[in-house]
Amino acid sequence: MVQAMPDVSPAKWHLAHTTWFFETFVLERELSAYRSPWPAYRELFNSYYEAVGPRHPRPERGHISRPTLSEILAYRQQVDAAMQQLLEERGSTPLIELGLQHEQQHQELLVMDVTYNFSRSPLRPAYTAEPLAPCSAGAPLEFRRFDGGLVHAGVAPGGADFSFDNERPAHRRFIEPFELGTRLVTNAEFLEFLAAGGYQTPSLWLSDGWAWVRENGVQAPLYWRRDAAGVFHEFTAHGEVLLDPYAPVCHVSGYEAAAFAAWAGARLPTEFEWELAARQAEPIATGCGEALRLHPRAATGGGLTQLFSDVWQWTRSAYEPYPGFAPEPGAVAEYNGKFMSGQWVLRGGSVATPHGHTRATYRNFFYPQQRWPFTGIRLAREAH
Amino acid sequence: MVQAMPDVSPAKWHLAHTTWFFETFVLERELSAYRSPWPAYRELFNSYYEAVGPRHPRPERGHISRPTLSEILAYRQQVDAAMQQLLEERGSTPLIELGLQHEQQHQELLVMDVTYNFSRSPLRPAYTAEPLAPCSAGAPLEFRRFDGGLVHAGVAPGGADFSFDNERPAHRRFIEPFELGTRLVTNAEFLEFLAAGGYQTPSLWLSDGWAWVRENGVQAPLYWRRDAAGVFHEFTAHGEVLLDPYAPVCHVSGYEAAAFAAWAGARLPTEFEWELAARQAEPIATGCGEALRLHPRAATGGGLTQLFSDVWQWTRSAYEPYPGFAPEPGAVAEYNGKFMSGQWVLRGGSVATPHGHTRATYRNFFYPQQRWPFTGIRLAREAH
Amino acid sequence: MVQAMPDVSPAKWHLAHTTWFFETFVLERELSAYRSPWPAYRELFNSYYEAVGPRHPRPERGHISRPTLSEILAYRQQVDAAMQQLLEERGSTPLIELGLQHEQQHQELLVMDVTYNFSRSPLRPAYTAEPLAPCSAGAPLEFRRFDGGLVHAGVAPGGADFSFDNERPAHRRFIEPFELGTRLVTNAEFLEFLAAGGYQTPSLWLSDGWAWVRENGVQAPLYWRRDAAGVFHEFTAHGEVLLDPYAPVCHVSGYEAAAFAAWAGARLPTEFEWELAARQAEPIATGCGEALRLHPRAATGGGLTQLFSDVWQWTRSAYEPYPGFAPEPGAVAEYNGKFMSGQWVLRGGSVATPHGHTRATYRNFFYPQQRWPFTGIRLAREAH
Amino acid sequence: MVQAMPDVSPAKWHLAHTTWFFETFVLERELSAYRSPWPAYRELFNSYYEAVGPRHPRPERGHISRPTLSEILAYRQQVDAAMQQLLEERGSTPLIELGLQHEQQHQELLVMDVTYNFSRSPLRPAYTAEPLAPCSAGAPLEFRRFDGGLVHAGVAPGGADFSFDNERPAHRRFIEPFELGTRLVTNAEFLEFLAAGGYQTPSLWLSDGWAWVRENGVQAPLYWRRDAAGVFHEFTAHGEVLLDPYAPVCHVSGYEAAAFAAWAGARLPTEFEWELAARQAEPIATGCGEALRLHPRAATGGGLTQLFSDVWQWTRSAYEPYPGFAPEPGAVAEYNGKFMSGQWVLRGGSVATPHGHTRATYRNFFYPQQRWPFTGIRLAREAH
Repeated sequence: MVQAMPDVSPAKWHLAHTTWFFETFVLERELSAYRSPWPAYRELFNSYYEAVGPRHPRPERGHISRPTLSEILAYRQQVDAAMQQLLEERGSTPLIELGLQHEQQHQELLVMDVTYNFSRSPLRPAYTAEPLAPCSAGAPLEFRRFDGGLVHAGVAPGGADFSFDNERPAHRRFIEPFELGTRLVTNAEFLEFLAAGGYQTPSLWLSDGWAWVRENGVQAPLYWRRDAAGVFHEFTAHGEVLLDPYAPVCHVSGYEAAAFAAWAGARLPTEFEWELAARQAEPIATGCGEALRLHPRAATGGGLTQLFSDVWQWTRSAYEPYPGFAPEPGAVAEYNGKFMSGQWVLRGGSVATPHGHTRATYRNFFYPQQRWPFTGIRLAREAH
Repeated sequence: MVQAMPDVSPAKWHLAHTTWFFETFVLERELSAYRSPWPAYRELFNSYYEAVGPRHPRPERGHISRPTLSEILAYRQQVDAAMQQLLEERGSTPLIELGLQHEQQHQELLVMDVTYNFSRSPLRPAYTAEPLAPCSAGAPLEFRRFDGGLVHAGVAPGGADFSFDNERPAHRRFIEPFELGTRLVTNAEFLEFLAAGGYQTPSLWLSDGWAWVRENGVQAPLYWRRDAAGVFHEFTAHGEVLLDPYAPVCHVSGYEAAAFAAWAGARLPTEFEWELAARQAEPIATGCGEALRLHPRAATGGGLTQLFSDVWQWTRSAYEPYPGFAPEPGAVAEYNGKFMSGQWVLRGGSVATPHGHTRATYRNFFYPQQRWPFTGIRLAREAH
Repeated sequence: MVQAMPDVSPAKWHLAHTTWFFETFVLERELSAYRSPWPAYRELFNSYYEAVGPRHPRPERGHISRPTLSEILAYRQQVDAAMQQLLEERGSTPLIELGLQHEQQHQELLVMDVTYNFSRSPLRPAYTAEPLAPCSAGAPLEFRRFDGGLVHAGVAPGGADFSFDNERPAHRRFIEPFELGTRLVTNAEFLEFLAAGGYQTPSLWLSDGWAWVRENGVQAPLYWRRDAAGVFHEFTAHGEVLLDPYAPVCHVSGYEAAAFAAWAGARLPTEFEWELAARQAEPIATGCGEALRLHPRAATGGGLTQLFSDVWQWTRSAYEPYPGFAPEPGAVAEYNGKFMSGQWVLRGGSVATPHGHTRATYRNFFYPQQRWPFTGIRLAREAH
Repeated sequence: MVQAMPDVSPAKWHLAHTTWFFETFVLERELSAYRSPWPAYRELFNSYYEAVGPRHPRPERGHISRPTLSEILAYRQQVDAAMQQLLEERGSTPLIELGLQHEQQHQELLVMDVTYNFSRSPLRPAYTAEPLAPCSAGAPLEFRRFDGGLVHAGVAPGGADFSFDNERPAHRRFIEPFELGTRLVTNAEFLEFLAAGGYQTPSLWLSDGWAWVRENGVQAPLYWRRDAAGVFHEFTAHGEVLLDPYAPVCHVSGYEAAAFAAWAGARLPTEFEWELAARQAEPIATGCGEALRLHPRAATGGGLTQLFSDVWQWTRSAYEPYPGFAPEPGAVAEYNGKFMSGQWVLRGGSVATPHGHTRATYRNFFYPQQRWPFTGIRLAREAH
């Protein structure tokens, strides 16, 4: 029931909201006789859909002590039953598919939010009792060249079983030759940035980023803690552990990612460079579905690794509409389009992303100061 | 577990903190071998005792999802058992008595806090399912004269079974003749203030109060809600009810109390006028212990009514030390003394005050903008 | 024209506002035919009189680049001429006397405000080029006993050539025996408090004061600066000087004053103790009118020194109305009464107070966190 | 000397800062013997160059009452003389050219800032006494089609007499066919948006934009004022005038521009669409250098009008580095690059842009909520 900052939601709220999505956008539209037994939930579990009507203020989701968890589970059960019947009678629809994808997104949000809430609880409980085995050393960081040129980006009609409106339409982009890091940046590498005074060197930072560092006294990634002996620990879904030098750095802001890249003599990729590479690279799977491991792990093997499996990768691309972008029709038009300002695109996927949810054209997006998603760094540079 | 504003605490926290008080100030001091089985609680459930050490930040009490309620109940049980044994072996002490009085204060805080939290929960649940019967009309508001003169204030040695340090020492005050309202101001009377534009008339308000009205858009007491038809409702521990015209106005700030008094051609009493009247008046009890009624009710009978039983009464006295004030020795010195700036004294007691907890010399105190306590208005004026 | 924080006003604004006071409260009331040639000034130079109408927001006084200084000087000249004629024709009135006293108050505010503004100007200019001679050592700090008893406080009818409404009516107070420091606390003594860790010791502070220290990182009086060698300097109206150990400490908040007193095993006086002492003590003048010295100086001679001449002295008394207080009639009712919440009373006078402006019954008042007035510390304690 | 919000600077500061630029980046680097006679100015008039050292906080520029205007004019004179001598001896350099372009940018900022400061001064003075003649009706709004394709963007080596680093390197972009409005959106058209409830319709707004509208109570462009009769007025550098229906709407945020475009069934152009059009269109000059007119005017003639002459045109492009972007070497590296996050690109020029300062590749940039620049709207849409 905790909401330790406005960005996160109580676990209970996620359970109710994903149910609300099916009730509001499917049941109420498809079944003209459907009347919600809980009309108050219409406002209570609306996240941001202005077209649906007023909504409970986001920063006050932690105040919702009623309905109780068991009432919410009953709500889920009842809506699930109605959905089951509808599916049997009429089969699936694009809105039902959207609802399922939406619930998958909230599965990842739920892990992010519980981890954040637990990190602010003084007893620092763990999301899972499963121990976290340390990584072994990965391959050295190398760069692979891509020629670029005039390429297609986005999802063409029939190009994916499912895609969000923000991945469409497919269109052409001209890309200069570039190089992409074959693996993610590790904690050990990020520690070098710290040791080199990265957080004290304004020339490495974007102006907004430097202001953010100073106003918030930022000195390390979100969940790092330096003990009295100078040793770093990291809070994870498995509880607090010794910082693993071989694991990819995680929970960094876009500003930190860009500053690290500048320090390393590189830059962040654009989202189109990343997409081109992901299409061409035959990515090496590194176990996205591995049960109960909720923390990134070291790269294994050569080639272009860790594309989809460990942490979302900040790009330097602002989240903007594609040429000819048209939002989904109806109330779900608000799903993606209205967020296309001020945010940065992330590509890939994370340890908390449900299996099969992501793809090469998938566009995740957060504000550059947000760190509670599973975010990390893949470097890029101009091609020699 | 909810904390809907920094001033309130989750119910779970009250349960743990009052136990912590006994453990920290009694068991750890009296039993040299006592070692808390939960050392983390020392920081977690410390309210404001700097001498005890660091503490969990007050606005983040709502983040404490661990320990769970059952863990806290086990904590209470274990500390209760140790206290029981100590009492049997050694009998009571002033610190144990202080701990009991402290727990009584938290019993009232718990009702205040749950009511506030429920008021911010969109489903607006009720603290008690017991229905709230409407009041009948009370006596007309009259003023009773007191001569004043050189009187004693505060608690003399042996003058009460228990008193807080802030009620001591007994000392002399010179009081000019004054008059005191025989009963509390009612909702009906406060509605007249609203109708007369009281919230739009700056000349009625203290400067700080007027700034508070404007910055917060205040237009009525805390829990009032005006429906589309213009009818007022009030949120209470019994859920939302029609505003009862005969009940005393409740949940007003000190600023609102002072503005109402100015509008009524009167003023708030000083705390010493109130104390003098309460000592002389043989107050008429109006059922402070009435089971399960958690909302003030109408005055019954003549004389000086509703002194202790319905709502705390704002005085115009700033909360200051008495001449010769000395705080309790040791860590509990912080109990009262350090709060003696910026707050106003309230006198009396409320429907949520435990039976036998209050007395004529009792000094309650809040900041003048705080409205979630059970606060109301008794008028005073210069004697003719 | 600078306004470096909302509390201060540009010098130009003081010149215009004191003129506005005469125009609004005297000329417009006394001369029915009077029409201000500058009707826009009515709103522009109204400080806080709601009854006069809307007003320019206080924090935006620094935005008033028009009218220019020469336009404001012309405004003063014209209003002065009209006042001169009125005085010749009809003689003085209480409102004219109030206007003169008001202008004297602004003479002190102007020195306070210019000094503050200059302190925030990176070149740190001096208000006066006159050098500031160092003080020599004063008398040791002693305490003088006063018996107290039932005494009169405030101004009786005919008791002063002029008094503000907040000094009236005269009334009786019972005062327990007490002792008062014969001189003010010096910088050397306050340095001992610093060296003893006073700013790091929460038990010395009121709760509000400790919060203020931590939120603002307070480590010394307002204008103190510690250089790289650890030597303290003080910014004054004479520019920055070496901190004078023998001068009274100045520009401390009420919280700092109270914490120092607690550390010194004493307390602040009540305003009534101070007034009683000032009436009985035949204060030793120490040169309040000394030309061009705008910084406090060391006590000279024995007895009760520095009562009116160096710094205002924080009392522990909240600023409250006297029994039977009635504000001035008409729009100037807002002059004092509406500020009677949240502020503390200061007694005495300062180096910047115009000659003849203050007296034993004078009540100055500021919020306990305000430090830009000339504020200092006189200790008190219970009588042995 | 006024600074009515942190974004603007006092006029005096602009005079000093542009001089500081020449002193810091030219004289101190080119003349090894040069020593500034005013070393304190190094910190005082540094805008945002971390590499130069500490700087006076931006929001406190209005506190700088010293140096006085005449001291700053003397500073300018002396630095000008040193520059004159340097130019005669060694001729111009890229840094000198950058300093001149920088000063031109501040010429526009100065008009923006004075206008804003005057708008917050209650007497609302005018920047210029020259009257503002009303516009006559312009051409109807039409759209012109551009084919797009693989085009060059940015400045090629030798492609302009001067360019900023953010316009380089020239590179290829693929642009889908599009249409661009032949003229700017007028006040009359924007009034229709108001009348249609544009500011009350969340579906028209980006999510960040809608939050901005609600938090700030935005109901019209920055300088519009609706009088009691419902008539709109606009504050301008010529003082307040009746809103001119035929003039281009000015002082709108990027959010307002995007919402208007959505309401009009169009969208904002990308910066590359704009640049392509400006290169191909042989723009019709509309008097950018027209003396003393500091407010946009109606389009005259057909074709693609008002590209450079009236208001900067919001694009939907986030301000990002071009592929292969490299900042200027040395301390001026901070000139543009570090601002490449969170801001939007504007293209064109305004009535306040110095003659000859802008060009088709010029990238201006502001945060989407900023409205005090001369910003307006040119519509775009997909090509049919």
